[in-house]
Amino acid sequence: VKIAIVGSGALGLYYGALLQRGGQDVHFLLRRDYDALMKSGLKIFSSNGNFELPKIQGYCRTEDIGPVDLVLVGLKTFANSILSELVSPLVGKETHILTLQNGLGNEETLADLFGAERIIGGVAFLCSNRGEPGEVHHLGAGRVTIGEYLTCDRDRLETLASICNRCGIDCKTTDDLKKIRWEKLVWNIPFNGLCALLMQTVDCLLSVAGTRSLVRDLMLEVIRAANAQNLCLPISEEYAESMLQFTDNMGVYKPSMQIDREEGRQMETAAIFRRPLEFGRKQGIAMPRIEMLATLLEQVDGCNIRK
Amino acid sequence: VKIAIVGSGALGLYYGALLQRGGQDVHFLLRRDYDALMKSGLKIFSSNGNFELPKIQGYCRTEDIGPVDLVLVGLKTFANSILSELVSPLVGKETHILTLQNGLGNEETLADLFGAERIIGGVAFLCSNRGEPGEVHHLGAGRVTIGEYLTCDRDRLETLASICNRCGIDCKTTDDLKKIRWEKLVWNIPFNGLCALLMQTVDCLLSVAGTRSLVRDLMLEVIRAANAQNLCLPISEEYAESMLQFTDNMGVYKPSMQIDREEGRQMETAAIFRRPLEFGRKQGIAMPRIEMLATLLEQVDGCNIRK
Repeated sequence: VKIAIVGSGALGLYYGALLQRGGQDVHFLLRRDYDALMKSGLKIFSSNGNFELPKIQGYCRTEDIGPVDLVLVGLKTFANSILSELVSPLVGKETHILTLQNGLGNEETLADLFGAERIIGGVAFLCSNRGEPGEVHHLGAGRVTIGEYLTCDRDRLETLASICNRCGIDCKTTDDLKKIRWEKLVWNIPFNGLCALLMQTVDCLLSVAGTRSLVRDLMLEVIRAANAQNLCLPISEEYAESMLQFTDNMGVYKPSMQIDREEGRQMETAAIFRRPLEFGRKQGIAMPRIEMLATLLEQVDGCNIRK
Repeated sequence: VKIAIVGSGALGLYYGALLQRGGQDVHFLLRRDYDALMKSGLKIFSSNGNFELPKIQGYCRTEDIGPVDLVLVGLKTFANSILSELVSPLVGKETHILTLQNGLGNEETLADLFGAERIIGGVAFLCSNRGEPGEVHHLGAGRVTIGEYLTCDRDRLETLASICNRCGIDCKTTDDLKKIRWEKLVWNIPFNGLCALLMQTVDCLLSVAGTRSLVRDLMLEVIRAANAQNLCLPISEEYAESMLQFTDNMGVYKPSMQIDREEGRQMETAAIFRRPLEFGRKQGIAMPRIEMLATLLEQVDGCNIRK
């Protein structure tokens, strides 16, 4: 299968590397690490075993890749305005597009551009960071759950999942993409938000009673908003507890939004905060803490941008 | 009148200077600026005109001041645990104690220690900061409103107010100390809290729609909690609007809590946040934003302290 990775950050490089190692024909759109990757290849440091790809197919422009069977979108959502330009050259008659981006609204954006029938959505629970140019550190987890955006093509979904699984990516399928998107937000909203705001890793928040309880309150606001969205099955409040315990096991982990702020990048507040807030508001769900967190993040982001 | 200033920060030094200039016998308990003040006196840079006191009566210990007619307490509330030790040597049979500290609970603490009949409370709307050792910058405002804590000694209150006014301190009296304390919180909670959390001055918050609206939401939570406390007259919601406009006129102002954090001091979260939250909770008032802000401040304060 010919695959293009658009957005070769910690997520795109990690999954792309597994797919290439598993025998797929993977093409990476690169930016920051182009020189290092083309010269020395890609190194993955992983709790599941380190490995190295001495040679990868890297590009500066998607025009040089041409049409593919599958586009894997791992771009930061604040760059979604350039998806049209980046993805268009990759799309042929039979091209499928899988977005593993954060937050809400990404399938919609891609569907508007390339047609809803192509779009598969997914969420990744992956702890990985970029290291030196050409290096990715996989710290743990990595399960992907994928679902159809609009069509009901179970076969396509199962085929894609089995390719992933054969390549060592733990991939499940779901009939309720909306639910898994919201489940991911139960984690993303409190941890990405508070860690980025306070510039503290997840363990700092979880080890103090006050912030641990604030994390839980934020999770419960997400769950209430989610359960007003006509999911097939509601998210139970116990899910918050299980996410707290899951995160306890992550140790000193720095969420992506904290890294974004640290490195002076924009933060993904629109997709992770504002879209969910809109969906909640439409159903009359009060989300005062999430609203406040979004406002605070935008305020520090504004400062970053002004700098 | 023999007056002792306990807590000679920007507030204590400023009002103490006005009282001394007005002919009162003022004694300052000093710490940080002792050497500079004893050597070169006190300089006030004020929008109402600069002035200088070449010589002040400064002390390292209140034992050396002895009993006074009036103790003016301007100490940071996180140091209230040493009030007993600091104030005891100043208290004689006829000593009155006026606290102009921030937040709630200060009159109660002093009343427990020295008897409720001595205690007068007050709030100061004062924009002032310390500059170089021995210098205070008065940036604007300065009105003090004072009220009896428990007794109904109108005469005592009026006498004290007229002394202040004769010395150039704009001083009003009130029959509802509780109300003016809560009114001050309508300003203190959003501005001290958000400026300290984000490390941005008030104008940064007010010039962005999102944070301006968050400031207003926080004010409305304070007003709702206040109006559940049996005030003589409720605080109207328009008070929030008037405080926003008042603050627009302050320009680039850095509230005391932001300065505290910047200089690595503890922040006054107990008096300004936790006490009001307790009073609100007792009356069943939801204050999710204030609770969240308090938790965030304690978390950054914890970091400061751990450093």
